[in-house]
Amino acid sequence: MAIYELGETAIVARIVRRLDVEFEDCAILDLSETEYLVATTDMFHRETDFPHEMSAWQIGWMCAAGTLSDIAAMGARPSGLLVSMGIPDLTPAFVDSVVDGMDACARRCGTRVIGGDTDSHQELTICGTGLGRMPKDQILRRKGANVGDIVCVTGNLGMAGLGMAELEQKREPGGSAAINKLFEPIPRVEEGISLAESGAVTAMMDNSDGLSLSLHQLANVNCCGFEIMASALPVPPELRADADAAPGSGLDSAPASALALELALYAGGDFELLATVAPDRLGDATRVCELTAIGRVIDDGVFLKDCNGVTERIERKGYRSL
Amino acid sequence: MAIYELGETAIVARIVRRLDVEFEDCAILDLSETEYLVATTDMFHRETDFPHEMSAWQIGWMCAAGTLSDIAAMGARPSGLLVSMGIPDLTPAFVDSVVDGMDACARRCGTRVIGGDTDSHQELTICGTGLGRMPKDQILRRKGANVGDIVCVTGNLGMAGLGMAELEQKREPGGSAAINKLFEPIPRVEEGISLAESGAVTAMMDNSDGLSLSLHQLANVNCCGFEIMASALPVPPELRADADAAPGSGLDSAPASALALELALYAGGDFELLATVAPDRLGDATRVCELTAIGRVIDDGVFLKDCNGVTERIERKGYRSL
Repeated sequence: MAIYELGETAIVARIVRRLDVEFEDCAILDLSETEYLVATTDMFHRETDFPHEMSAWQIGWMCAAGTLSDIAAMGARPSGLLVSMGIPDLTPAFVDSVVDGMDACARRCGTRVIGGDTDSHQELTICGTGLGRMPKDQILRRKGANVGDIVCVTGNLGMAGLGMAELEQKREPGGSAAINKLFEPIPRVEEGISLAESGAVTAMMDNSDGLSLSLHQLANVNCCGFEIMASALPVPPELRADADAAPGSGLDSAPASALALELALYAGGDFELLATVAPDRLGDATRVCELTAIGRVIDDGVFLKDCNGVTERIERKGYRSL
Repeated sequence: MAIYELGETAIVARIVRRLDVEFEDCAILDLSETEYLVATTDMFHRETDFPHEMSAWQIGWMCAAGTLSDIAAMGARPSGLLVSMGIPDLTPAFVDSVVDGMDACARRCGTRVIGGDTDSHQELTICGTGLGRMPKDQILRRKGANVGDIVCVTGNLGMAGLGMAELEQKREPGGSAAINKLFEPIPRVEEGISLAESGAVTAMMDNSDGLSLSLHQLANVNCCGFEIMASALPVPPELRADADAAPGSGLDSAPASALALELALYAGGDFELLATVAPDRLGDATRVCELTAIGRVIDDGVFLKDCNGVTERIERKGYRSL
């Protein structure tokens, strides 16, 4: 059997079991009686992870963003980024731009690129490692959700997916907010820290593989289910059903189109935070961070409920490169 | 201009300047008033970094060893290893073995694989990230060597290079100590910690790219030079000039052959520590760690002195994959 047949989630689960480590966005290390170090590593490849339209600077930014989003998902404050690069036959200016983009994203998140390594490789391959620190009593893990908790997300869902759809339609990049979100996502570092400090969140992860996969992963870890309200999904205005028909009027309350739902549920690349919040603490969470409540934790199954009260299962699918 | 034309040292120097970071084996982060976190990342590729004869387990071991050797070079105690893997069409058993080899090396060095990431890639690519901690007042940097300091190394020099030469002669792996050293190097973690604690070392790095490149790098950082005594180089008994002629008799004092010198100076893969020691503290260093004094720090130039007192320049060459 080839390892591809397992699928990435199963491969990671296999390794996690083998090593007896936690299945979190970051590895967690004791720093002192009161503090954790969190650390995460992500590998990116030119062909599979970056649309051809991306600039070198955006490739660097994206690598840093993907790594720092994992730090944000724990509620930690980033304290450094390391980068390993396997470099094909590129110009020094291209490599400089990758490094600059990476450092710009790190600085946007209050940290820096602090070290790294290079070697030669036929395809540009970048491995980012993020480090962060946080008070032990504030750490937000994937595990911790309770039945009855409110499911919340930061920002919009489906915006990066829309950007990808626009690219596939050969729309010129640069002018579109969706493509911009896809190419230069801003990790929710400040939001993660605020939510951790609030003490209101019971479980958290990022949704970089898409909402559906993230919900299924949280369901697995917590032995719970989710009921998501279709009408509550914060799809961007560009994806509302009547966005073209009635621009500028009541867009925010218009129902999401089928495409919008598809992108909000299954497209990756948004790098938003997905959190479960104790119902009596929802005000404490929304006071410190802009959140949209999209559903609640239930006993079992991952469901979408439409405005007519009809529920259907949310498929376990999304962005996975393996 | 393609970036290859610069050479890896220049590429790294360029990035280091661009980011205004230190040029060390590890990045260094403040943990507290008294403690540093050190972190290092290394990328390895199946075709360029691992002889075909290596097993999956040995590939994993080697990745961990390369990363942990950088931790050892600072004198730090490892506190965790992260691994990102780009995986081609392999069997699950192969991937398991890589992970097992990596974890075995980590455990040999008192730590564990604590997290990671996988995705798909056409060539097996592994990025290891090592974390370590140490008292601030003990940290050993590349910078710090003074003229008159004694240059020392742990272990033998050229053993891994001999292993590589044996492989090229199609000698069967498994039976040879040299190939074993090449395939399963043991990072000098305990030695690094002991040397750091001794307070006798002024500068340190590992010699994984070969002694020559390491000396030239130390010379650059410290604006100094080195005079290395050919007769003092601890080449393994297998490489002594008359090893074949007079086995078992006086091998240790026999002069090194031309091949031995070549391998000791220019072959990579040994993962030994190269340290400069204050002359009045040499006893403190050798009391806690087996070391061979091979020369001294001078004002300028990197020279080899033979037993007749003739000196020649040591070329700046060695193992570099870019």
